[in-house]
Order: sequence, then structure tokens, then C-alpha cells
Amino acid sequence: MPSYTAPTKDIQFVLHDLLKVSEQDVPGYDEMDRDFTAAVVEEAGKLASEVLSPLNASGDHEGVTLENGIVRTPKGFKEAFEQMKEGGWTALDCDPEYGGQGLPYLMNTAVQEPFVSANMAFNMYQGLTHGAYSAIHAHGSAEQKAKYLPKMVSCEWTGTMNLTEPHCGTDLGLMRTKAEPQADGSYKITGQKIFISAGDHDLADNIIHLVLAKIVGGPEGIKGVSLFIVPKFAVNDDGSLGARNAVSVGKIEEKMGIHGNATCVMNYDGATGYLLGEEHKGMRAMFTMMNEARLGVGLQGYAQAEAAYQNAVAYAKDRLQGRAVTGAENPNGPADPLIVHPDIRRNLMDQKSFVEGARALTYWGANLIDRAHRNNDKAADGLVSLLTPVIKGFQTDKGFEMATQAQQVYGGHGYIEEWGMSQFARDARITMIYEGANGVQALDLVGRKLAADGGKHVMAFFDLVKTECKAHDDERMKPFTDALKTASKQMQAAGMYFMQNGMKSPNNALAGSYDFMHMMGHVCLGLMWTRMAAAAYTALDAGASDTAFYETKIKTGLYYMARQMPACAMHLARIESGADTVMGLAADQF
Amino acid sequence: MPSYTAPTKDIQFVLHDLLKVSEQDVPGYDEMDRDFTAAVVEEAGKLASEVLSPLNASGDHEGVTLENGIVRTPKGFKEAFEQMKEGGWTALDCDPEYGGQGLPYLMNTAVQEPFVSANMAFNMYQGLTHGAYSAIHAHGSAEQKAKYLPKMVSCEWTGTMNLTEPHCGTDLGLMRTKAEPQADGSYKITGQKIFISAGDHDLADNIIHLVLAKIVGGPEGIKGVSLFIVPKFAVNDDGSLGARNAVSVGKIEEKMGIHGNATCVMNYDGATGYLLGEEHKGMRAMFTMMNEARLGVGLQGYAQAEAAYQNAVAYAKDRLQGRAVTGAENPNGPADPLIVHPDIRRNLMDQKSFVEGARALTYWGANLIDRAHRNNDKAADGLVSLLTPVIKGFQTDKGFEMATQAQQVYGGHGYIEEWGMSQFARDARITMIYEGANGVQALDLVGRKLAADGGKHVMAFFDLVKTECKAHDDERMKPFTDALKTASKQMQAAGMYFMQNGMKSPNNALAGSYDFMHMMGHVCLGLMWTRMAAAAYTALDAGASDTAFYETKIKTGLYYMARQMPACAMHLARIESGADTVMGLAADQF
Repeated sequence: MPSYTAPTKDIQFVLHDLLKVSEQDVPGYDEMDRDFTAAVVEEAGKLASEVLSPLNASGDHEGVTLENGIVRTPKGFKEAFEQMKEGGWTALDCDPEYGGQGLPYLMNTAVQEPFVSANMAFNMYQGLTHGAYSAIHAHGSAEQKAKYLPKMVSCEWTGTMNLTEPHCGTDLGLMRTKAEPQADGSYKITGQKIFISAGDHDLADNIIHLVLAKIVGGPEGIKGVSLFIVPKFAVNDDGSLGARNAVSVGKIEEKMGIHGNATCVMNYDGATGYLLGEEHKGMRAMFTMMNEARLGVGLQGYAQAEAAYQNAVAYAKDRLQGRAVTGAENPNGPADPLIVHPDIRRNLMDQKSFVEGARALTYWGANLIDRAHRNNDKAADGLVSLLTPVIKGFQTDKGFEMATQAQQVYGGHGYIEEWGMSQFARDARITMIYEGANGVQALDLVGRKLAADGGKHVMAFFDLVKTECKAHDDERMKPFTDALKTASKQMQAAGMYFMQNGMKSPNNALAGSYDFMHMMGHVCLGLMWTRMAAAAYTALDAGASDTAFYETKIKTGLYYMARQMPACAMHLARIESGADTVMGLAADQF
Repeated sequence: MPSYTAPTKDIQFVLHDLLKVSEQDVPGYDEMDRDFTAAVVEEAGKLASEVLSPLNASGDHEGVTLENGIVRTPKGFKEAFEQMKEGGWTALDCDPEYGGQGLPYLMNTAVQEPFVSANMAFNMYQGLTHGAYSAIHAHGSAEQKAKYLPKMVSCEWTGTMNLTEPHCGTDLGLMRTKAEPQADGSYKITGQKIFISAGDHDLADNIIHLVLAKIVGGPEGIKGVSLFIVPKFAVNDDGSLGARNAVSVGKIEEKMGIHGNATCVMNYDGATGYLLGEEHKGMRAMFTMMNEARLGVGLQGYAQAEAAYQNAVAYAKDRLQGRAVTGAENPNGPADPLIVHPDIRRNLMDQKSFVEGARALTYWGANLIDRAHRNNDKAADGLVSLLTPVIKGFQTDKGFEMATQAQQVYGGHGYIEEWGMSQFARDARITMIYEGANGVQALDLVGRKLAADGGKHVMAFFDLVKTECKAHDDERMKPFTDALKTASKQMQAAGMYFMQNGMKSPNNALAGSYDFMHMMGHVCLGLMWTRMAAAAYTALDAGASDTAFYETKIKTGLYYMARQMPACAMHLARIESGADTVMGLAADQF
């Protein structure tokens, strides 16, 4: 069975050597000194390793069950959820007014990583609650906040997000769920929602559903969509629970993975709902926390790869098979460990260099979100909006690919469920789909974010890269800055191609959107590795004692620059081939 | 639930327009005229669509069960297996002396494709029998052949291949299963074998296990391995079945996919076995049919992608979501079908252009095997040996990737088992692992095949590419020949890098082996598309009536050349970065 240990040192490196959080002028960051973050991450890591990780395979195997309308989570989930609540882990970055600890979003991100690596299906129960909390916090009335938030912060009640219907997911304008206004100001919600993660379960006393629906008589399409609070049990004014609402689980979906999470078909049969935010502004309300939600999924992508990687390394060191081509390295044993073989190294280095780069990018994104929210920094807000589809789309594609590579290290054992490597791949697969399928992320990036605010944010990104390259005019940094400069120029050329040819037909831009997302992903990780290598050299120059750690960082970065950055030229060539070959066939020629 | 239709027209195109089988001077090919192959493929396609495909999802869901030592296959498998036998499909290319039809291997390949696309797990029962048949046919005594082959040709008895043990798969020299010689010339086989596909089941009266084991007192390591025939039930001289042999199923593995096939732990407890071929030459005997077996797995790779692709296309045409960016294409409907969106097109064209290219390469490989066996053509034998690791490794990596892309077209529905798209990805995943994990294919290619016979075969391959490019000195063929020339030069540069730097350290070659395998895969598919486009232009110039079909071929090829061939430059850059970054870390730095 796989195991997991939180990579505390790597997390600390990103927080302190790379982002230098204690030096940043962001409200709340003054608390985040090395000792504090180490203690918090270690404590979270302990819960992850000792409680959540052991439930990952069993939760996958057992799955959730629906019996007589009641959803049961796998054995042990209830007790683990209690520990999560008792530890205050669900409240970390929530508003102290409602019982939260008010820590920065970045701190919460560093804590979420081990939870997600250890047991993604389990962690979604609280993750979705956090999303619903944020929506109510941003758009709820004072009364709504007082009523729902304290119990959601503590996860005594959990939350869900209800968007998708059987016939529409990406195109929510087609939605059919309706909301009929009642005399008392509430609404009767009627319709069916699908793919509702944590839609029902036995971990909490109440579930607060956030449901998108169309108010009867409102505008057509997406402009007529509003957001509603629909509690599973009515909440009385004194906070006690009242009658069961007319919402029920139609069925639980059988899925490729995340079996420990209940993915429900939810039926709303005239359920009582309360408008959250303004009428017909439901999409805006739902998307307020989109950057956070998508960044959270991007984190899931690399966090699954991290867990898979740890186990692949252990197996590669343990399994004896064949001899090193340069001479036996375990001459007294019957064979050498797998890790001596160059192609196994390639496989592991792909994983390691991706995961560490993605961690840096994700934490930087979280840092920008903090700056946007806590410092009202518009530039940070613009930049993270640009980065979000890359963090989500690129990191989940690669996260799945890397989990698959980790599985490959095990050979036939990787295919057998008993070894647990299949689960990492199966669980990671969903991250490419939910919270906006990755094709939609690419569309968002190229169709919207590049040109947003007159292209200001992408220009700022290029400036950042340029500044970074200039800052390290240093022979030993050349492998980093050279590769980054080349890739950044290629990305600029792609942007130029879109501008010039998108005029003729927007298809010329959109046919290259997926490649652009990946190209920008590599540029972002190249930027992260450049910064991390510089930080590692700085530490070494300052006489840091843990030289092996910093040297490993530099070498891992060198691998990424040499082996991954060349993908950018390929993506550019594809982009510059335009839409002709992509759109060449009539639909009936497929 | 997914459906499947055999792509008869595409198969006919490869057999006749591309390979021009009727014109080839290969014994048996004279029978393969257009009408005959069309009739055979259509009939096989009917069985695939109507019988095998409907059992694919149910077989996945139900899986196999082991109760009191008896393995039961999913509902319907038994009846379907009867139909397969009755149709003579198991005997197609087998030796007429033992009841086979003696058709070329290429014909069998064209028939296997629809079976594999429709139901890979099911088809493995007869596929493995065919492998065991080939081994006995090549190495058995006259008596052994007479005893076992007729029933294996008809699949009244099935076969298995027993190589892997718990502690060794790739490195079979570590094998522990032992064979003790008996006075009557037989052996007592004792040991445990794992991952035995079709190891036991209820589809046949007897199972003929081929088992690798070490004769007690023989040489150490791989040089002491022999191959044995171990029948589940003893076969009396009159052909009737005797006592149960001491071989039993330890357990059935729970796997990521191919749930309909029984993957067994097999325990041999002093089971009676008969030496097949020479003492201590077991590996040679087992590997005689390696090219065929690996080509068969390469076929599985693209055949799963083909089935997934067909369903992704159907969904993309049916599902209404969003509007074309260039203006509504379904203005009277609530939204446009997915297929109008450029990124969905990119996704589908990736699949289509890969599958059709891979089919051509696989059939060409089968054609070379026929030439090697039937014409004793040494050049063909050398060439197919070179191509085999590429067909296996590249096509299964891409097949899985494409099945995953097909799943992505379905959005959330792709993750739900009910829709069947997850199964294509889960089933395809094994093809990257078994019959030699893809890293081992890359090692075989770069470490062995490139230099085999003084590099003669790879030089012949480059000559072929050169000749092909020269043969089409034609403006309309330029997009094909230009891209192919560029990629071929890059592949030559990679080979040169290996020669020059492999001297310093073999790691410099092996660290690039995986990239080389993929690079050569693209060159091979580029070559196939160049040939297919030329064949399509020839047909159009000759006034072929089905212009849409041939135009689609050309456009699909143009996509491949524009969008996939640029990967070669990336692979070259990685290869030329050498082993330094790959091998840079000490094992404890991972």
C-alpha cells in the first residue's frame, strides 16, 4: 500500500527561500515566519500521513453507498473528519468573525497540499465546504452569514456547488432548473443537478447546497441565472435544525476514481431556497472565487503526482531488476535497483522537476491572491487571473501524466489495484475535467485573459520574465536564463501570431489555445525554476548547512530547463500552423 | 454505452491503396484481392459490433470471479467464444496441417483489429492461445504438435504464457521456478507465476500453459531458463483428457482495467511439464514470436484509441454546448454541437490522424513479417525487428493518450463509468506495460536494434524514407515530404549523437532512448502519411469516385504533418542534452 510523507522542507523552501513571505508587506504574513509555517505544515503532514493516507486505498476500494436515501462514506472517514475539525484545519483562512483563524490563503494552500496528496477524495468534503463558505462570505446578507458561516467554518455543516445539469455543463445558459418566488421572499427550487461532489454524506449534520437556477420570468440564457442557498435541513432562527428540505439524492455515480467522494445526482423538488447575492447575477457570484477554486484544482494535479512520485521513488530504490549499464552498483545482490537505469531516472526526474515547479507556481498564485485581497493589489489580481487557467489546465494535465509515469515505474504491479498506483492516476484524471474542463481553461486563457485590460497582464508577465533573466547575469545561471529567454520569446511569438491571424479568423487563435496553455505552463515553470535556482545559489553562497538540499534543487531545475523547456518550440510550431488543418474536415468526414 | 463499427473502408485503403497486397509477390497474397479482404473484414466487423462490443462494458463491470478454484468469465463470454470458434476466426493464419486456414499474418492482423477494438479483454483469451500455438509450432516435436495444436487452433483448448514471478518480470534471470527431470523424460514444475492473462477460465476444456523454469543443476541466470508445456489436464495418447495437473489459481488480480480477462497468480506444485525446444534455450523459444506478440500489443494500443475515437466523434456531433466563435452553425437549436469548437477539433484530429497512421504502420509491420516468413526475406525481417519496439512502445503510449483525449471530449460524463469512456483509457493502460514495459522497448530499440547487424536495418530505414521523399517531387506533396525530411534528419542527428556520446558513457544513449522511440514513431507515422497521401492522390488522379474519402485522407495527413511532426525537434533537443541532468542526482537525493 502506498505511503505519504509531507515534503515539509520543499514547502518551507518555497515559502521562505523563494517567496520570502516574512519579508512581504501583506497583512497577516508577519505571522508566517519559518518556525510557525514549519510547525503548521508538519502538524498537517502528520494528520495527512497517519490518518488520511491510510484511508486513501480503503476509501477507493469501499466507495460510498446509497441505501434508502442515505449516503454512507467509507469506514474511517467519519473519525478522520472529526480529527480534521478538531484540529481547526477547516477554519484556517476563514474570517475570524465567523470562527476562522484569519490566516493568509497562502498558509491554507500549504496545508491543503498534504491533505490532497494523502487523500483527495476525502479532502473534497471540506474543500467544497470552503468554496461554498467563500461564496456566502462574499455575497451573503449579514443575516445569511451569521446563520450559515460559523457552522461551515467548523465543518459541522458542509457545503456543495450545484452547477451542472444532464444536458449542460460548460454552457450553463441552457440550464433548466427553475426558482419560483414565494410570498415570504424565499424560492421553490425545482430541477436536477448532476456531478455534485459531496452532494450527500454522513459526515455532517447539515449540508448547505449552493444551487444555480433560473427565476421564472427572468431573462433568457446565462443572464437569467441566479444563485440560491438550499439547506438540506431548514435552519431555525435559533440555529437549530428544522424540517428536511425537498432535496434528495437520485443516485451516486460510479466513477473512474475519487470513489471515496459521493458524486451525486441531486433532485430538487420544490425545495426551499434563498437568493444569494443579486437576482440574475448568479454566475458572477459563483465565479467570484473562481481563481481560488481553479488554483485548488491545479494543486490537486501536482499533489497527486507528488504522492505517486514518492511511492515510485521508494519502489525504484527497492526493486532489484537488471544491472546498471555502466557496471553493477549492487554487486553483492542478485541485481541492481531500478533507480540505476537511465530511463527510470528520466521518468522520476520528469516527475520531480514538474512537482516542485508546480508547487512553486501554485504558491506564487496563492501569494498573488493574498496580495489582491489583502492589499487590494490590482496588478496581482490581474496577474493571477492570467495564471489561473495555466495553473489549472497545465498542472492537471501534467499531474495526470506524471501519476501515470509513476505507475509505469512499477511495471505490471502498477496495473494491479493492490499496489495503489492505479488510484493516483484514476483520481488525478478528474482534475483535468472538473472546475472547467482543460479545453475551457485554454479558451479562457487565449480567448479572454490574454486580451484582458488591453493585454496589460500578459505584458506584465513578460516584463517579469525579462527582469528575472536580467537579475541573474551570472555564468552558473545561464542554463536557466537562456532556456527561459528562448521560451519566453517563443511565447511572445505565439501571442503575436494570435493577434495577427485571429483577426482573419478567431479559429486561428483558438486552434492553438491548448498548445498555448501548455507553452505558458512551461514558461511559468521555467520562471519558477530560475527563481528557485537563484534562491538555492543564494543560500549556498550564504553558507547554508544543508548543501545537499540546495544542490538537489539546482540539479532538478537544470533537468527541467534541459528536458522540458524544448516543448515550447513544438507548441509554437503547432500554433503557427494555424487553423487550416484543424478545421479542414466537414463534420461528416470524421 | 459505447458502440463500435469496423472501419472497413480504412482497412481496405491500407491493404490495397497503400500496401497493394494483391500485387505483392508473397505466397498467399494472391488470395487477398479487394473483394475477399472486404468480405472477411466485414464479417469480422459484424461479430465485433454485434457480439463482442456489447459485452465490453458488461464484462468490465462484472469482471471474472474465482470460486472454489474455478474461474468464471463474465456473462455472455462463453457464447461469444463459441461464435468466434465456429466462425473459424481463431484459425485464420494457422498451419493447415493442424486445422488452420493458412492465410497470411497480415490478413489475421486486419481481422484482429475489430476484435480488439470491440472487446480487448475478451479477445485476449484467443490472442494468448495464438501466441502459445506459435511457440509450440516453432519449437515443438512432431508429437507435441500433433497432440496440442489442432485443439489450440480451434480454441477448444486455450493457451497461456508464464514468464513473470513476484520478484522478477523484466529480469527473468532471477527466476526461481524450477523443473526437476523425471525418469520418463517429463519434468516436475514447482514455483509461482504472476500476471498470467487468461490463466484460468471456463471457456475451454483444457488450458495449455507454457512455463519458463530452470532445470535443476543447470546454468545460473538467464542461460539456465527452459520452456515447458504444462497442460491443465493431462492429454492421453488418444487425445482424451486425463488427470488434473498440479497447477492451480492462487488468486485473481484486481486491476485498473481489462476486468473481463482473468489475470491469475498460478501455482505450480510439482506439476508435470514437457520440455518445449531445447534445454536452457527457453528464452529463445519464448522470444521467437516476440515481433508478432509486440506488434499485436501495438495494435491493441491504436485499436482502443479507434473505438474511443468513434464514440468521441459521435458525442461531439450530438452534444450541444456553446456557439461556434465564427457564428452559430445550428441557429435553430439551443446551442451548436461540440464539434464546431476548434479545440474539440484539435482533440479529434489528434486521435484520427494517430489511429490511421498507426494502422498503416502496424499493417506494414505485419506485411514485413509475412515477407520474412513466407519469402525468407532477411531485409524484411531486419526491418520489422527495428520497427517492433516502436510499434509497441510508441503506439501504446499514444493509444492511451488518445483514449484519454477521447474521454476528455465527454467532459464530466467521460469520468462516469456508465458512459464507457473510462474503460477505453483503463484498458489501454495495460498495453504500455505488458509484453515488455515501454521503457524496455526503448532500451531494446536504442541498446540493441539500432546497432544490430552493423546498423544495416536503420540505414535501410533511412534509405526508405529518402526514396519515398524523392518519389514525390510534386508541389502538392511538399507539406508531407518537407516535414518527413526534416524529421528524418533529426532522427539521424539523434543516432549520430548516440554513436558519438555513447562511447563516453552508454548512459548518454540510454537517457535519450525513450525520446528516440517517440521520435522514430513520428518519423514512421510521417512516412505512412506520406505514402497514404500519395496513394490518395493517385486514386483521385485516376478518377476514383469516392473523392470525399480520399480528400479526407489527405487532410488528415496534413494535420499529422503540421501538428505532430514538430515533436521530433523536441525529442532531439532532449536527447542532445545527454545524461548529465538525467543522472545528476544521487539515489538519496530523490
